[in-house]
Amino acid sequence: MAQAAPQPSNTVLVGKKNVMNYVLAVLTLVHQGVNEVIVKARGRAISKAVDVAEIVKSRFLPGKVAVKDIKIGSQTVTNPDGRQARVSTIEIVLAAQ
Amino acid sequence: MAQAAPQPSNTVLVGKKNVMNYVLAVLTLVHQGVNEVIVKARGRAISKAVDVAEIVKSRFLPGKVAVKDIKIGSQTVTNPDGRQARVSTIEIVLAAQ
Repeated sequence: MAQAAPQPSNTVLVGKKNVMNYVLAVLTLVHQGVNEVIVKARGRAISKAVDVAEIVKSRFLPGKVAVKDIKIGSQTVTNPDGRQARVSTIEIVLAAQ
Repeated sequence: MAQAAPQPSNTVLVGKKNVMNYVLAVLTLVHQGVNEVIVKARGRAISKAVDVAEIVKSRFLPGKVAVKDIKIGSQTVTNPDGRQARVSTIEIVLAAQ
């Protein structure tokens, strides 16, 4: 897979690692004082991005973080064999309360 | 797995079938004149629910259907061995334009 583009410092890009890696990344940003953390994912990692948001919101920072916005979209990716394919994306904005 | 609860007639519950089954279900409701279709899923099917919404919106009904609202949440489910587990949920509201 191609190297992911660098993400802005308030963004957590959810991929193939265990869900708790991304939960910890979000918690670290919040504890650094970032007011809005954007949890992004595409394809099958979308379910995991929702898990990250829900675990942060209900288990680690209940009442302190809320889902402010959710956007879904599509990206076109080129497979290794040259075919173009559509892949879904999600962006979940978590805001400190 | 327990039988799913009956869904209201404007709801499509995304599960283990191929994505096109659910796309067709949404298109059928829209063509019946339903103004808002709710695409629901939980767990790993969440990614597929986003695919369903994106495919309907951009491939089949471009300009005619828009994402009106997206909610995420958590449910507690009891595993066959009696343990309780958290599972994420999503509801995507597609509205006819």
